[in-house]
Amino acid sequence: MLERIHSPEDLKKMDPGQLESLAGEIRSEILQTVSRNGGHLASNLGVVELTIALLRVFSPPEDKILFDVGHQCYVYKLLTGRYDRFSTLREWQGISGFPQPQESEYDPFTAGHASTSISAAVGLCRSRDLLHQDYHVISVVGDGALTGGMCYEALNDAGSSKEPMIVIVNDNGMSISGNTGALSKYLTYMRVSKGWINIKKGISSVLEHIPLVGQPMLKAFTGAKDHIRNIFVHDKYFSALGFRYFGPIDGHNEAALEKTLTRVRTLREPVVIHIITQKGHGYQPAENQPDVYHGIPPFYVESGAVRRLSSKKSFGHEAARHLLDKSETDQRIAVVCAAMTDGTGFADWKQRCPDRIFDVGIAEEHAVTMAAGMAKGGLRPVAAIYDTFLQRAYDQMLVDVCQQKLPVLFLMDRAGFSGPDGATHHGLFGLSYLLPMPDMRVYCPACAGQLTEAIDYALRQDGPAAIRYPRSEPHWTEADEALLRDAERWNVLREGSDCALLSVGTIAEEAVQAHGLLAGEGISCRVYSCCRIKPLDTETLEPLLKEGIPVFTLEEHQKTGGFGTYLTLYCQQHHFPAPVHLFAVEDRFVPHGDRRELLSLCGLDAAAVAASIRRLMNGKTENHT
Amino acid sequence: MLERIHSPEDLKKMDPGQLESLAGEIRSEILQTVSRNGGHLASNLGVVELTIALLRVFSPPEDKILFDVGHQCYVYKLLTGRYDRFSTLREWQGISGFPQPQESEYDPFTAGHASTSISAAVGLCRSRDLLHQDYHVISVVGDGALTGGMCYEALNDAGSSKEPMIVIVNDNGMSISGNTGALSKYLTYMRVSKGWINIKKGISSVLEHIPLVGQPMLKAFTGAKDHIRNIFVHDKYFSALGFRYFGPIDGHNEAALEKTLTRVRTLREPVVIHIITQKGHGYQPAENQPDVYHGIPPFYVESGAVRRLSSKKSFGHEAARHLLDKSETDQRIAVVCAAMTDGTGFADWKQRCPDRIFDVGIAEEHAVTMAAGMAKGGLRPVAAIYDTFLQRAYDQMLVDVCQQKLPVLFLMDRAGFSGPDGATHHGLFGLSYLLPMPDMRVYCPACAGQLTEAIDYALRQDGPAAIRYPRSEPHWTEADEALLRDAERWNVLREGSDCALLSVGTIAEEAVQAHGLLAGEGISCRVYSCCRIKPLDTETLEPLLKEGIPVFTLEEHQKTGGFGTYLTLYCQQHHFPAPVHLFAVEDRFVPHGDRRELLSLCGLDAAAVAASIRRLMNGKTENHT
Repeated sequence: MLERIHSPEDLKKMDPGQLESLAGEIRSEILQTVSRNGGHLASNLGVVELTIALLRVFSPPEDKILFDVGHQCYVYKLLTGRYDRFSTLREWQGISGFPQPQESEYDPFTAGHASTSISAAVGLCRSRDLLHQDYHVISVVGDGALTGGMCYEALNDAGSSKEPMIVIVNDNGMSISGNTGALSKYLTYMRVSKGWINIKKGISSVLEHIPLVGQPMLKAFTGAKDHIRNIFVHDKYFSALGFRYFGPIDGHNEAALEKTLTRVRTLREPVVIHIITQKGHGYQPAENQPDVYHGIPPFYVESGAVRRLSSKKSFGHEAARHLLDKSETDQRIAVVCAAMTDGTGFADWKQRCPDRIFDVGIAEEHAVTMAAGMAKGGLRPVAAIYDTFLQRAYDQMLVDVCQQKLPVLFLMDRAGFSGPDGATHHGLFGLSYLLPMPDMRVYCPACAGQLTEAIDYALRQDGPAAIRYPRSEPHWTEADEALLRDAERWNVLREGSDCALLSVGTIAEEAVQAHGLLAGEGISCRVYSCCRIKPLDTETLEPLLKEGIPVFTLEEHQKTGGFGTYLTLYCQQHHFPAPVHLFAVEDRFVPHGDRRELLSLCGLDAAAVAASIRRLMNGKTENHT
Repeated sequence: MLERIHSPEDLKKMDPGQLESLAGEIRSEILQTVSRNGGHLASNLGVVELTIALLRVFSPPEDKILFDVGHQCYVYKLLTGRYDRFSTLREWQGISGFPQPQESEYDPFTAGHASTSISAAVGLCRSRDLLHQDYHVISVVGDGALTGGMCYEALNDAGSSKEPMIVIVNDNGMSISGNTGALSKYLTYMRVSKGWINIKKGISSVLEHIPLVGQPMLKAFTGAKDHIRNIFVHDKYFSALGFRYFGPIDGHNEAALEKTLTRVRTLREPVVIHIITQKGHGYQPAENQPDVYHGIPPFYVESGAVRRLSSKKSFGHEAARHLLDKSETDQRIAVVCAAMTDGTGFADWKQRCPDRIFDVGIAEEHAVTMAAGMAKGGLRPVAAIYDTFLQRAYDQMLVDVCQQKLPVLFLMDRAGFSGPDGATHHGLFGLSYLLPMPDMRVYCPACAGQLTEAIDYALRQDGPAAIRYPRSEPHWTEADEALLRDAERWNVLREGSDCALLSVGTIAEEAVQAHGLLAGEGISCRVYSCCRIKPLDTETLEPLLKEGIPVFTLEEHQKTGGFGTYLTLYCQQHHFPAPVHLFAVEDRFVPHGDRRELLSLCGLDAAAVAASIRRLMNGKTENHT
């Protein structure tokens, strides 16, 4: 059936009796594609019925449906004219894994960072009203994204101004890696208690769809009497914020969802619909381990086993392991995560050192200021947060950490190109905001050895430090690893006398290859691995600059504000000629795709770098802007 | 009495009968000092009894008391050993107007940006517990700061983990300029309804202390029955988040506060105490106009009149006026503020164009993504937010605005040195994060003419733009204003042939003075006013660089990532020699003080600039790092 659905209108024409098998087709399609391309599986399997119901009741692109974070937009894409391209999901030049207005008029707003959809929806509502237009605005937000303060700011605003809009709380009892926070407990309490009434009334219970987290969570609430009394008053959390609350509703009962949406559609006030879904619904391995199948690399559908497990450890795992060792003798070490304990490699800590790891949910601002408080109290907190998500806490890093010169260590995973996740997930701006922060030490290790040394050094300092690294380690030979051991000093990876290429972090791999290519053409290019970026390793840099050979820089980062800029500023201040060329991402956003494609797109792969250096060394100093 | 109180211990020894007159002394001392130095008045007058009670029950510096934002820390400073220095409040090298750990061991954490104290408190609690220490952690947060999402993130985390801590919600029915948001209405509802019970029970009512905002707010809630029923259940907002709720309590009844604090002190769980205070309590003009007396310049105590009203309009007022004119013909213009409608100059809009101004409270993240949503819907939103507070929405600007290339215009007030407010309030980082953002146009006007032209230009574009300006306009002659008319092109303010000084924004005043000083010494220095910073005005820049005279830059901004850095990067890319020297703030935080003192401290005043240029022009090219 799926191939015959080109728009929501086609879906509206379908007989309700066909919908269950359509849902099956959709699940199968998603399962096949994600098993091949990797992607977000469990959350999409959870919203099949919801998305069908939404598209049968509402009419995008006129009506605006915003999926928060966007992890759960695949079903929507399949049903809004992108079925034929769906096999290219997350591939270079294929369709994006997130809502993408450039891709389709059905996607009203970008997503990728959590907790933004209600704010964007409020903005759309205000635009609609001021321009005297008439459409519906619906935000679909998971219970995980609700831990972000932005959601609260937006609910508070919309509830106060009584903006007509619909917020669907997709409650799957899960943020990315498990329930976090009091509100999550509260939602569990709501669904369990309401479920309980339904049983009493003989209505089909929603309990059968509730993951097994409900009962233990209830223990957090004292007094059974309170529970029962609360059943009889309306939900107070959302109504305190000015929203009318409906729910909880079985999120896998399409008919029930349609009925509620149809009713709510006529209301002219802010409404919350609380639905209960099961992450991974319909695919046993994902139902059993929704965290594993949240974002997953290619896997075998039959077994659920991942196709190729990386043999290399990630930087994050290495950092977590090293810090776990250190924590045995240093009682001041504690870890702060923001919903990414698995992704950052710190999942082990939950078992092995549970009282020293604090996962605050998707709440980077709180995470950073809390870490500052921990440091103020005498701990040595380590905040392990993706590079791109730490952008959320820029102000807190600057004011609460740096102004107080507190020893918070930031581990910024997913620096550089994130690959298939695309523009919202690339870590290409970190240096531009870290380097201007007074007292901040900044490291970009190229290998595990530099990483652990940087950690050791940072923990000995009495001020803030940030260590940025990509998802996975590069493949160094043992000989290279021996050369790369230094985190504080820049290391010469390849000798050379004609020019010098200063590389930052793991892109040193490309630099080494460029060295080889240039050597073949008679250009002897010295290659440095620069791990400590702030302060610059002037003991290595000064002699190099005095030597007077042409200098190039290479980094997986925006040019403006990156390492090359910082080095150029140093040259300006110390009256050295500027570097000849800075290899970096020009002033642009970078789409999704395989990292190699993206390096090539941005002219940062070994071949492009070698070609440019050769041209520039041959004196053809055209304008390279 | 005040001069005999050197620590909380002295306060504990006092007879309760003396406290009322002590409170009077404190109010008088604050009134005198603020009337002379300017500062935050109304919020401090509102927390006199609370602070006395806190210091009689708790024992800092062992116990940690955190004042959110810090606008209300004067009483605390007076009672914790800073009475003798209090007359230097906010003065150069005097005591800070905000909590400042470097100033006193009694200040456990910095403040200045709102909504951080609960996060910092959670961090201190976790540190305390892990290090097996024993002290109390108390966060005092106003209802205004509660609109910030960070508070919610922190409450959600602490309520979930049951961290023993005390949050005092200081409810004065006011954020900085009026109530905002549903939670604010909810608090009003709580206090009115609870006050009502107390009357019924014959207990002294808190209603007499409630500002007159209560009743109209009640209208936002439907159904009187709901109200009454809700009285009998405990507060659900804070309890949904896992906190035990006490209140509302009369915040001017010291004995009642002491009693509650003493009781709560023994609890080992997260607690919210909701107190009702009156902003400006005890000083009639401030009671009547708490927003005017929130932050106020020097004034006459008797009349309440401000000592000297600036004759110059602020940039903010000019922008607001200009946009109001434009909005008559352009129905797409709408304004977004974050609790600073007065400070940003947009207060008039509330009366004259109320349906086109949206004040979301202290919620910059939501403000920016909401503005993005408005732009997506077809409006031309203008987000008027202080430079330093916009740091909170760095991620939203980058992802939601720039990645979608949406036409949101950012008006960034208080750029450059903020003066007496100090390190947390200076706007010295804006360019470093704006310039790397793809598609962002950046303007730094030197006068009102450049400002309005930049606004006009930005509104004609189909992408994002940011205009940064300081609190007040400089004093230009008419002749200079004529020279400064261009926002898109760099303007020559003073001719010269020996060297060129490129100045950014209003610091052009210093550049012009430096020109005069240098002329007296035979150096002919051309002075430019550079308003549009991104993209650079290459039509003016290229000929200048080709001319080959020494180039200097001058800006009120961090050196790393600022205009000078950006220009140096351009020179590197186009193979021009770098500027000789960049006058900017070196890699440091800058304390509070008069702007002139701060310019001098950072070597950015005309005399210092002229002296350096003279030295450098005379060939003494020492190392200027």
